[in-house]
Amino acid sequence: MKTNLNDLQLAYLAGFIDGDGSLIAQIVKKDDYILKYQIRITISMIQSTSRKHFLIQFQKELDTGTIRDRNDKITELNIIGHLTVQPLLQQLRPFLRIKLKQANLIIRICEQLSSTKNDPIKFLELCELSDQVANLNDSKKRTVTSATVKKTFQDLGLIKE
Amino acid sequence: MKTNLNDLQLAYLAGFIDGDGSLIAQIVKKDDYILKYQIRITISMIQSTSRKHFLIQFQKELDTGTIRDRNDKITELNIIGHLTVQPLLQQLRPFLRIKLKQANLIIRICEQLSSTKNDPIKFLELCELSDQVANLNDSKKRTVTSATVKKTFQDLGLIKE
Repeated sequence: MKTNLNDLQLAYLAGFIDGDGSLIAQIVKKDDYILKYQIRITISMIQSTSRKHFLIQFQKELDTGTIRDRNDKITELNIIGHLTVQPLLQQLRPFLRIKLKQANLIIRICEQLSSTKNDPIKFLELCELSDQVANLNDSKKRTVTSATVKKTFQDLGLIKE
Repeated sequence: MKTNLNDLQLAYLAGFIDGDGSLIAQIVKKDDYILKYQIRITISMIQSTSRKHFLIQFQKELDTGTIRDRNDKITELNIIGHLTVQPLLQQLRPFLRIKLKQANLIIRICEQLSSTKNDPIKFLELCELSDQVANLNDSKKRTVTSATVKKTFQDLGLIKE
């Protein structure tokens, strides 16, 4: 990822993300993980596929991210993973307004994610922060929440009732 | 309208408009006008009503625009009229990317609008530019296009076939 974006580029991107982007913390089932779940951090920007070239321009400018056609009309640019997202959000933070709360929560998650890999209590705390991000995003399609993770941890005896 | 927005504010707003705003040139029926139609120029930004306070913040920052609840979920900030929109778009232009074409077309319309009030041929040219803006906006709900205006002008004998 580029770390030398100037303030005008960052202000523009912050505006774009505030308008049409998403800052996402998703709890994902991972059967081969000790804690059975992973928190996937994503910055997502979408555009009509006919304007895909603008997303490619953002991708080049950021020097990171993956372009994906969601269907024949919508294309998305996804920047996935806390190691990439955290430093970018740190740079964007001074310019974000509408999604500043999500950014702050996600930065907190990113900061602690590495140290919670085998710690169910701490991991659950980060899942609760992910719930808060989802609430701010008006997210309605979530199937896995911190409650799901808590139930699994209880069933596995990783935490007490 | 404020004319002393700094480059960081303009870059942010350009990003926001590129993401979620609309630059609109709408042909509106006006029975009491000599040419029977008006071109209404609008910059529109929408947000969930629960985040209306961000639109109010934009309104204060720009020192212009009208806040309107579209329904109980969606609120919009509209900046209407070529005299207000043109100077703002001139300032935003260096920072716009995705909606730059719309901005350039609308600036052309604004520049000529005053001089076409009673000139059907010239007015029709601006209606055609409005069609181009609508096409760039993937607008599907338009009922009045330059073709409608042309037909009216022909029926009224304002232009030849």
